[in-house]
Amino acid sequence: MKAISRGRLERKRTTLLAATEVFLDKGYDRTTMDEVAAQAVISKPTVYKYFSDKEQLFAEIVHATAGELDDLSRLVPEAMSGTMNVEPVLALLARRFITALMRPRILRLHRLVMANAERFPNVGHSWYEQGFDRVLAALAMSFQGLADRKILLIEDPLLAANHFVGMLLWTPMNKAMFSGDGGSSTEELDRYAVAAVRAFLAGYGVTS
Amino acid sequence: MKAISRGRLERKRTTLLAATEVFLDKGYDRTTMDEVAAQAVISKPTVYKYFSDKEQLFAEIVHATAGELDDLSRLVPEAMSGTMNVEPVLALLARRFITALMRPRILRLHRLVMANAERFPNVGHSWYEQGFDRVLAALAMSFQGLADRKILLIEDPLLAANHFVGMLLWTPMNKAMFSGDGGSSTEELDRYAVAAVRAFLAGYGVTS
Repeated sequence: MKAISRGRLERKRTTLLAATEVFLDKGYDRTTMDEVAAQAVISKPTVYKYFSDKEQLFAEIVHATAGELDDLSRLVPEAMSGTMNVEPVLALLARRFITALMRPRILRLHRLVMANAERFPNVGHSWYEQGFDRVLAALAMSFQGLADRKILLIEDPLLAANHFVGMLLWTPMNKAMFSGDGGSSTEELDRYAVAAVRAFLAGYGVTS
Repeated sequence: MKAISRGRLERKRTTLLAATEVFLDKGYDRTTMDEVAAQAVISKPTVYKYFSDKEQLFAEIVHATAGELDDLSRLVPEAMSGTMNVEPVLALLARRFITALMRPRILRLHRLVMANAERFPNVGHSWYEQGFDRVLAALAMSFQGLADRKILLIEDPLLAANHFVGMLLWTPMNKAMFSGDGGSSTEELDRYAVAAVRAFLAGYGVTS
């Protein structure tokens, strides 16, 4: 029994990946369950065995892809814990955030979720919560620790986390969202990371 | 002749406004020229007299709405020019930016342009250029002036402009984009404005 259900889980996962490609390529409206079945090389009734309808399939795609970003929130406390020298750690986090979020597949899903947020606000909330809120909360918690140890000068850690991420991502993310392609080169992304860390520490660092 | 062409311009403008409603309501794919005609209470051939096809109509809608944001870039030099006390001026600008950009109609068009940026990258570029780049360029120019006068401590004025706007807008804009509604109350927007100005001046202000 266990082997069978594991096989089923694996097939469901493969179908989800195939469906993600179709949604990213066609958008929500122009995706059909027929194309999902064709892309996954299974029958349409099998697709319906895994996902009750297109909306549920979309929600699961978003949930699974947002899950890929969970590593980022785990990384924050690991990297920050016990550090005395915050600059290189923030630089590492900035680079990891920007690299993870500016991947073409993530950007395209980001765009797709946004495009459909009025119709499927729950899917939008779930993407925002998993993809943004968790990382911000993890950052805020670490900032609080650094403020307690007088390494940073922060009154409102969550606001500071928002400022850090906003300085880092506002421009490259918008450039990418409004152009068909990724928008920024690796070198440019690196410059945004360095600049955001420098400005953040100028504002929130302890001047000794 | 002049009166006739003025009447025609006015009718075209009215059609554009009616079409904007249809696009915002239905999205690009589900908007038809029939519905645009019905909403504008004119015949379909008349719609085609003004706009050669749906894509051109979409491009003109975006151009016209982005034009509404031109006031913001004009406001920057007016507000900044000659000021010695930068904090209240930045606070005024922050409030005006956030209020203008977080209007439901602007947010919905923002989302619509983003949603279709892969298919219509020129429309995406035009929205980004008119709606973002101009304001950033105006801010950067004013920041350069303030840096020259030693009122701000800025090496790269465009980057500083990006940081200012990123701290201001990243969180409320994403909240709005991923929820069906506006996302933030007026009081919250005001708090984002105040906090962004404070953090910006902590980082880029001259500590005397």
